[in-house]
Amino acid sequence: MNVGILGLGLIGGSLGFDLRACGHHIIGVSHRASTIETALAIGCVDQASVDINILGAAEVVFICTPLGLIVPTIEQLITVLPQTSVITDVGSVKTPIVKASLSLWQNFVGGHPMAGTEASGIEAALKDLFVEKPYVLTPTPTTPASATEVVSKLIKQLNSNIYYCTPEQHDRAVSWISHLPVMVSASLIASCLEEKDLEVLELAKNLASSGFKDTSRVGGGNPELGVMMAKYNREALLKSMHQYRHKFDEIIDLIEQKNWTHLENILKSNQQRRPDFL
Amino acid sequence: MNVGILGLGLIGGSLGFDLRACGHHIIGVSHRASTIETALAIGCVDQASVDINILGAAEVVFICTPLGLIVPTIEQLITVLPQTSVITDVGSVKTPIVKASLSLWQNFVGGHPMAGTEASGIEAALKDLFVEKPYVLTPTPTTPASATEVVSKLIKQLNSNIYYCTPEQHDRAVSWISHLPVMVSASLIASCLEEKDLEVLELAKNLASSGFKDTSRVGGGNPELGVMMAKYNREALLKSMHQYRHKFDEIIDLIEQKNWTHLENILKSNQQRRPDFL
Repeated sequence: MNVGILGLGLIGGSLGFDLRACGHHIIGVSHRASTIETALAIGCVDQASVDINILGAAEVVFICTPLGLIVPTIEQLITVLPQTSVITDVGSVKTPIVKASLSLWQNFVGGHPMAGTEASGIEAALKDLFVEKPYVLTPTPTTPASATEVVSKLIKQLNSNIYYCTPEQHDRAVSWISHLPVMVSASLIASCLEEKDLEVLELAKNLASSGFKDTSRVGGGNPELGVMMAKYNREALLKSMHQYRHKFDEIIDLIEQKNWTHLENILKSNQQRRPDFL
Repeated sequence: MNVGILGLGLIGGSLGFDLRACGHHIIGVSHRASTIETALAIGCVDQASVDINILGAAEVVFICTPLGLIVPTIEQLITVLPQTSVITDVGSVKTPIVKASLSLWQNFVGGHPMAGTEASGIEAALKDLFVEKPYVLTPTPTTPASATEVVSKLIKQLNSNIYYCTPEQHDRAVSWISHLPVMVSASLIASCLEEKDLEVLELAKNLASSGFKDTSRVGGGNPELGVMMAKYNREALLKSMHQYRHKFDEIIDLIEQKNWTHLENILKSNQQRRPDFL
């Protein structure tokens, strides 16, 4: 199959490696000539260009640009693509992207591979990145079944674990397990840093160990990524943040009322049920 | 020096190993005969008994019982101890313990070694557990300098990094870096679990990866320990929780107002300053 990959970074390059290994003909597009050179040199594409017209023969195209460029990229792409071709994306938020993309192109299937590393760029591309990792597809009632099948077949070849859900269910789920943790963790660091007694702040820095390290990790990560989550998944994230805040207030109340039994019940339930997420 | 250790668990046993290796004579006390046997067998004590009277010759005694037993244990201990002997404890909260202990015994120095493993009990005792780990001592203006010096000298032999501060400063610092993270993390798990759309909850469980895993770790830990923190460090913890909640509300507001610049500034500051805690 002729598979186009638009955006050759960690995800695009890694998709290229594995789909090419499955025998597909991979056509890469990047806006940077140096990226094209690297992609060809490391062998994650069969052919590549900075010119989007090279995708005229693609039967399916993966949009692997940053979140904010997905829809503008599709607007360009559809001027060169045969109507039968299928477009899919790898964005980490689905509702706004699927809505806008479907209005531009009927054969669009939203996707989100939940794999990655700390690194980025074509140099970070890895073989087998998606093996046994979740890959969410979000077809809607108007998505042609044939389009969903084309994408599903390719994803199965990556040996990913495919999940199907609505764009809204995807965004709610990732708000809980990915975007809310960032805001919860960011608030922890930011509130510590506002400690007024500088001796206490210094002591806190010296005494912090694995508990603080783990709980603060995602809140001390890439700022652009954090803003992107909030911007694109704003509605679902705000809903989760309000529900979190309600639970946090409940725990404050229990401690204020010295209701140790109820507090212990919450912590016991957490201890029992957290393994379901791991 | 004759060093008593009252309570032979992970901390007590590990202290025994290292202080004995420094040439001190270690006298252990546990309320369980089987623990005494194990302590003697693994060699973390020179002599040991279930009878507290064995500590009559101890020049310094480390109280290594659970937090709730420290003060009752000191009440018993002072009936057998020479007035010149020094008592120290290893409790993770200092203000209430130091206050109560000082009213019982003049030569008391509060302590908190910040080392440990997931395991507990005498079988979990390790050599060199405290090397290069923080060990906080909390003398007060009424603590005799000689008592502080006796304890300091022993701690230095463990090769720990000693910090001196008031009990209140200790409790504020650990509320930020240890106790608040538990409540923040516990609220994350508990609020996720209340998701009403069971398909979304199931999806969240399947999609959760390292971000959720790390942020939820301490909130899914030992429930008794979590309650203990809240119970004994209630005042400092509540203060930190209210300050955290204020910061979390600020972030909700920024996202509601789409103030991406300000949100990015907070995340940038976090990214820059988090390494100070590691």
